[in-house]
Amino acid sequence: MSDFTVKDALALRVGEGFRLRDVDPASTPGFTGGEKKLDRAFDGPDDELKDLQRMLHANALREDHTGAVLLILQGMDTSGKGGVIRKVFKVFSPQGVDTVAFGRPTEQEQAHDFLWRIRQHEPEPGRIVVFDRSHYEDVLVHRVQQLSPADEIERRYGAIVDFENGLAERHVRIVKVMLHISKEFQRENLAERLERRDKHWKYDPDDITQRLLWDEYMEAFEIAMTRTSTDAAPWYCVPGDNKDYARMVVKHLLLDALRSFDMDWPEPHFDVEEERRRLAES
Amino acid sequence: MSDFTVKDALALRVGEGFRLRDVDPASTPGFTGGEKKLDRAFDGPDDELKDLQRMLHANALREDHTGAVLLILQGMDTSGKGGVIRKVFKVFSPQGVDTVAFGRPTEQEQAHDFLWRIRQHEPEPGRIVVFDRSHYEDVLVHRVQQLSPADEIERRYGAIVDFENGLAERHVRIVKVMLHISKEFQRENLAERLERRDKHWKYDPDDITQRLLWDEYMEAFEIAMTRTSTDAAPWYCVPGDNKDYARMVVKHLLLDALRSFDMDWPEPHFDVEEERRRLAES
Repeated sequence: MSDFTVKDALALRVGEGFRLRDVDPASTPGFTGGEKKLDRAFDGPDDELKDLQRMLHANALREDHTGAVLLILQGMDTSGKGGVIRKVFKVFSPQGVDTVAFGRPTEQEQAHDFLWRIRQHEPEPGRIVVFDRSHYEDVLVHRVQQLSPADEIERRYGAIVDFENGLAERHVRIVKVMLHISKEFQRENLAERLERRDKHWKYDPDDITQRLLWDEYMEAFEIAMTRTSTDAAPWYCVPGDNKDYARMVVKHLLLDALRSFDMDWPEPHFDVEEERRRLAES
Repeated sequence: MSDFTVKDALALRVGEGFRLRDVDPASTPGFTGGEKKLDRAFDGPDDELKDLQRMLHANALREDHTGAVLLILQGMDTSGKGGVIRKVFKVFSPQGVDTVAFGRPTEQEQAHDFLWRIRQHEPEPGRIVVFDRSHYEDVLVHRVQQLSPADEIERRYGAIVDFENGLAERHVRIVKVMLHISKEFQRENLAERLERRDKHWKYDPDDITQRLLWDEYMEAFEIAMTRTSTDAAPWYCVPGDNKDYARMVVKHLLLDALRSFDMDWPEPHFDVEEERRRLAES
C-alpha cells in the first residue's frame, strides 16, 4: 500500500461540474491508515520543502523574475485555517513567510475596489505567502448577505480570474484551498470555544448568524470555486473534519507548487577560488 | 545544579562601562553542561511561550492599547541571525510573527531620514516582530565606512533612543541582541559558504571587505550599544560562537518580554450561556 503522494492531493482539484455535496467532509481521499501513517505522510516532504524554500529565496536574491507561492485559505468558521498555518508552516523559515489575515474591511478599504487591499499584499519574489481569508470573502459573504448587487458579484468572478492570471504571469504559483467541514463538526468546535476560557476570545456571536446560513454559504462556495478554478489558480476542495488529513494535503499541494519551479542553486556571481584566497589573507 | 533561567539571560544586559572585549564569544555565561542539557534549556519555555503568544494575540483582538514584542538582531556577517529566527521562532505561530530584513537602503529610502524605512514596520499590537538588521546599521556601517559625518552619527544615537522610547510608550517591548562571534568563527563560516554549492548564494565578496574592518566594527558596536542601551530598550551582548547557546538565550529574553505584560485571557464580550443556547438551536 503506497503512501499519500502529490498526485493524490492534486486529485482534489475542482473542475467543471463540481458539486460540493459530493465531497464528504469526513472522508480522506487518497489516504487509508491510522494516525501513525498520517504522521508519516505529514512529515515525509519536510526535508524537500526546506530545501525548496531556501532555493526559492536564493534564486530571488540573485536573479530576476523568480517565483513566489501564494496559498489562499477559505472555509467556514472553525474549519481549521489557523491550524493549517500553525502546523504546515512550521517546516518553513519564518524569514521567507508572510501571513496575511483579511478581516472585515476598514472604512478606507471599503472606499476602494475589493481587490485594492489584496493588492497591497501581492507576494514578493522568493516568498511563501498565506492569505487567511481573501478576496473570496467579497463573493462569498457578499452573495449570501446580499452586500453587493448580483451583477457586481458576477463582475467580481471575472475580475478575480484576471487578477490571479496577472499574478501567475509574474511567476506566482497560486494554491487555493477550501477546508470543507460538516455542520456538525462546526457545532463541536464552536461548543469548545464556548466551553474553554482560553478559547472564548476566538468566539464571535456573529459565527452563529453565519452558521444559520450554512446552505447558502455552501451554494456560494460551489459557484465561486467553479467559476474561478483555473489552470493558473486551481481550487482544491479538501475535506476538513479530519484536521490532520487536511493539513497533510495542504503540505503536499505546497510541495507541488514549489517543485513546479524546477529550481537549482543559483550560480555564484563571484570567482570562488579568488574569494578563498581573499578569505585566507583576511 | 540549576538550569538556565530568564535571570541568567538578563545578566547579559549591556550597562555603563560595557566593554565588548570583556565578553568571550566562545563563552556560555549562566550555562554549564552538555548538548542534552542545552536542548532541555532550549525546549523548556516552549509551552509557556505558545500560551503567551496566543494571549498577546487574543488581547490585541479584544482590547485597546495592548502590546507587541520587537526583537532587534544585529551582528557581523555569519553571526547566526538567520539561525536564531529559524530555530527560536519555530515555537510561535507564523500568524502572529513578522520578520523584516533590512538590506542596503533603496534610493527612495536613502532620500528619507534613516528612521523612515524602519517606521514602515513598527509592530502592530498583538504581534511578535523580528528585525534582521535594523536602524543600527545606520550608526554601525555608517561610522566604520564614514558614510555619514560624525555629528550626524552623534545625532542618530539620540534619535534612536527617542524612537525606541516612543515605541515603548505604545507598549512595544524591545529586545536588542548583538550576536557576538569571534573573527575565527566567522572565518570558518565564510569558508563553509565558499565550500558548499548550496551555500554560495549566501556569500558576498563584500563580506571580506567588511571583515578587514573587524576592529573598527567592534568599536562601533561598543559605542552604539553603550549609547542606546536603555530601560525601555536594553541591549544584550550574547556570545555567539556556540550557536545553540545563543538561540537558547534569545528564547529566554523573549520569554521575559512576553511575561512582562502580565496577561490573562480577555473576558468574553458576550453572554456565554446565551450563546450556548443559540448554538444548540442552530
